[in-house]
Amino acid sequence: MTEKFDIIVVGAGILGVASAYYLQKNNPDKTVLLVDSQPDAGQANTAMSAAAIRNMFSSSTNQLLTDTSIDFFRHIHDDLKFDLTLHLCGYLWLLSEQQFKEPSVQTWMQRMEANDIAYRVIEQKELQQLIPGLVCEFSAEDEEAALMHLNNVDYALFGAECGVLDPSLLVQFYKSEFLKLSKVKPRFNLRVDSLLLEAQPSLGLPGEPLVWQQKQVTGIRTSQGNIHADKVVVAVGPWTNTLLDPVGIPSYVKAKKRQLFMVAASDHPPLEELLFTKGFSDTGFIPFTILPSGGVYVRGVPEEKSFWIGCADKVGRAYKYTMDEEDYSGERAYYENSVYPVLSKYFPAFANIRPGNMWAGDYAYAVDAIPLIYEHSGVLVVTGASGSGIMKADAIARIADALYRGEPKATLYGGRTIPADSLGLTNRKVEVESVLI
Amino acid sequence: MTEKFDIIVVGAGILGVASAYYLQKNNPDKTVLLVDSQPDAGQANTAMSAAAIRNMFSSSTNQLLTDTSIDFFRHIHDDLKFDLTLHLCGYLWLLSEQQFKEPSVQTWMQRMEANDIAYRVIEQKELQQLIPGLVCEFSAEDEEAALMHLNNVDYALFGAECGVLDPSLLVQFYKSEFLKLSKVKPRFNLRVDSLLLEAQPSLGLPGEPLVWQQKQVTGIRTSQGNIHADKVVVAVGPWTNTLLDPVGIPSYVKAKKRQLFMVAASDHPPLEELLFTKGFSDTGFIPFTILPSGGVYVRGVPEEKSFWIGCADKVGRAYKYTMDEEDYSGERAYYENSVYPVLSKYFPAFANIRPGNMWAGDYAYAVDAIPLIYEHSGVLVVTGASGSGIMKADAIARIADALYRGEPKATLYGGRTIPADSLGLTNRKVEVESVLI
Repeated sequence: MTEKFDIIVVGAGILGVASAYYLQKNNPDKTVLLVDSQPDAGQANTAMSAAAIRNMFSSSTNQLLTDTSIDFFRHIHDDLKFDLTLHLCGYLWLLSEQQFKEPSVQTWMQRMEANDIAYRVIEQKELQQLIPGLVCEFSAEDEEAALMHLNNVDYALFGAECGVLDPSLLVQFYKSEFLKLSKVKPRFNLRVDSLLLEAQPSLGLPGEPLVWQQKQVTGIRTSQGNIHADKVVVAVGPWTNTLLDPVGIPSYVKAKKRQLFMVAASDHPPLEELLFTKGFSDTGFIPFTILPSGGVYVRGVPEEKSFWIGCADKVGRAYKYTMDEEDYSGERAYYENSVYPVLSKYFPAFANIRPGNMWAGDYAYAVDAIPLIYEHSGVLVVTGASGSGIMKADAIARIADALYRGEPKATLYGGRTIPADSLGLTNRKVEVESVLI
Repeated sequence: MTEKFDIIVVGAGILGVASAYYLQKNNPDKTVLLVDSQPDAGQANTAMSAAAIRNMFSSSTNQLLTDTSIDFFRHIHDDLKFDLTLHLCGYLWLLSEQQFKEPSVQTWMQRMEANDIAYRVIEQKELQQLIPGLVCEFSAEDEEAALMHLNNVDYALFGAECGVLDPSLLVQFYKSEFLKLSKVKPRFNLRVDSLLLEAQPSLGLPGEPLVWQQKQVTGIRTSQGNIHADKVVVAVGPWTNTLLDPVGIPSYVKAKKRQLFMVAASDHPPLEELLFTKGFSDTGFIPFTILPSGGVYVRGVPEEKSFWIGCADKVGRAYKYTMDEEDYSGERAYYENSVYPVLSKYFPAFANIRPGNMWAGDYAYAVDAIPLIYEHSGVLVVTGASGSGIMKADAIARIADALYRGEPKATLYGGRTIPADSLGLTNRKVEVESVLI
């Protein structure tokens, strides 16, 4: 005898919890079981995120997903008074003149204008006044800068409707709303070993399901036995292939490790001054800032008087799912050799200061850096957020629920709509995202 | 001291050998080294193929790639008098009325008409006359047929410009032409352990290549030492991820095992009669025939008086790269339980006859079932042919060469052209293929 629910949501990261909430809210008669291998929701990759939120994407799809999700987060924080530690400190992209003029950057700006995504261009002189501690130009004699291919900072794109939040609080919001509605207690510390793929109907033949049988995912295998459901939502980010590959359901995502390094600003007056850079927003601290070289970025964390430093790992960082591995953590040598040299050239205030803490998570890349949301053989797949799942979470979850209900369109927060099947594998209608960090 | 070539082509399957040929032919001053882990060219997945060729695809892209490649194969066989054991026996897709009327099938037919792909619709009555041994209708009392969801055969789509060939002979053609031009002897029995990704320039720092360094694949690591090249062509089909993932170059292909089962027709008069079905073509044997249920297909092999029986593994067959595994071979139980029950219902002549031989290979699926051809960080990737690489090989190789030469367009055999970057990851402009076997 096995248990049976209408829906099992595998994965209680931000995408799983938000999906569980909308599925339960809009299907009140259905039983929704949320399961996760961790002791509570949001404790795996969601917790490892830089948790910055932006609507400044080049793809209209990503703009829509983030713009509506961020509006909803503001609604949670401002109207519902559920504290998300949400700060609209803005995003600041530093660019050389050559970068600024690249066709991809021009297209990015044009699409933002076409879709009413707020941003402004800041020129070097104004930028230098706003952030006196930023080095905008490297002299021709600076051999280090030349060796490191450091671009000058000639322009910045600033997006005021962007910022940062605490992802664990966002998870707690969706989880608590879900718990108010659900009659089924979530199960944590429960690892899903595999998906159950069964013949429909089963004939009790050896080797089922056979090629000529209809087959469907009918539940999950766990250390505590099998649990059945009419629909299994797979919302496990970079772990997606581990569940879908064995049953032959296509996913086409790739996992890659990403790290964050915490650098304390307290006791370092130049760093503290940099952290509390005024002038960009009324939050009183520095925008989420992307350097024009090396993929290095800087996130202010005013509550803990620190910075989180990250870096976009492109070629040279393996595609693999690493969270299960023993050596999984931030790499001090990576900070020392790859991140720090770039960071300290643009922001000398970081010179000779070592990170006090570091951690790592995995991104789940889609080929076009747009989320994947689709149904296949009894599974509803939600994955491929490509490192920007938190800022798209509300829209992704609403689309997943619309797919479940068979609605042709998903209505996002604020009323804009999107065809529910447009983020699937086969009828995919998206612009490839080019603004990746 | 390491060796250095202009181009290394990794993988001497059909795509690697054809690419090596066009690269050498159109870049006569360049040195091209072809390497493969097998003792000779075409001995891995290419040799395992059903080696059927068709231009009957639903995507205009696949139509173009196959139509021009098949024309070139006919040129090799008919004009150059290089025997490919090429038989234009045709392709025969058996369909129920419901299948025939599906929008995807209607779109398929419309696109074939728009692009001058020859085919004709055959109705049940004529089909039954052409193949008396085919069961077209299952009675309502046939419980087996109902349990197995067997569709009736109401229509067939027949493509006369399709057929079969011997892939090892096709490989030999490209290899011998390549050897006539190349000054570098191919190296077989040489396994590539990994790609060399190096900083440009190297500064001798620990952990290179670092994030802020320019980096490029500069060669291959093998058991016989490193070999350098300005360009490394990765043409290793389902093994692509094994080489590209560790250096962080995206590929987005998925491997899946496929099997073939040889059933001898000699000594079985009804099977021999079926094999030598006249009336479809002047080859005098049965077209490559796809049953309307279970994904089962039948390929005649007149030279050995046998059939090769295959089956399209969809959900239920894991995505994984299996060729390295010890248990890698055809699975007798799979034939018995999955393939045979379907096959023997449509063609009772197969009843009670067991396969005399069986083998397996891996497909390399792309998300849209269109090949992937692109340059990235010093690598030229040729992959994702999704089980139809042989029939597209000539076009794929010409596109790879055009990319290498920086040409905006590739000219295919017969003069039609295609933008050289249209099968890449980022500027991909293709129609998703829906006619997969």
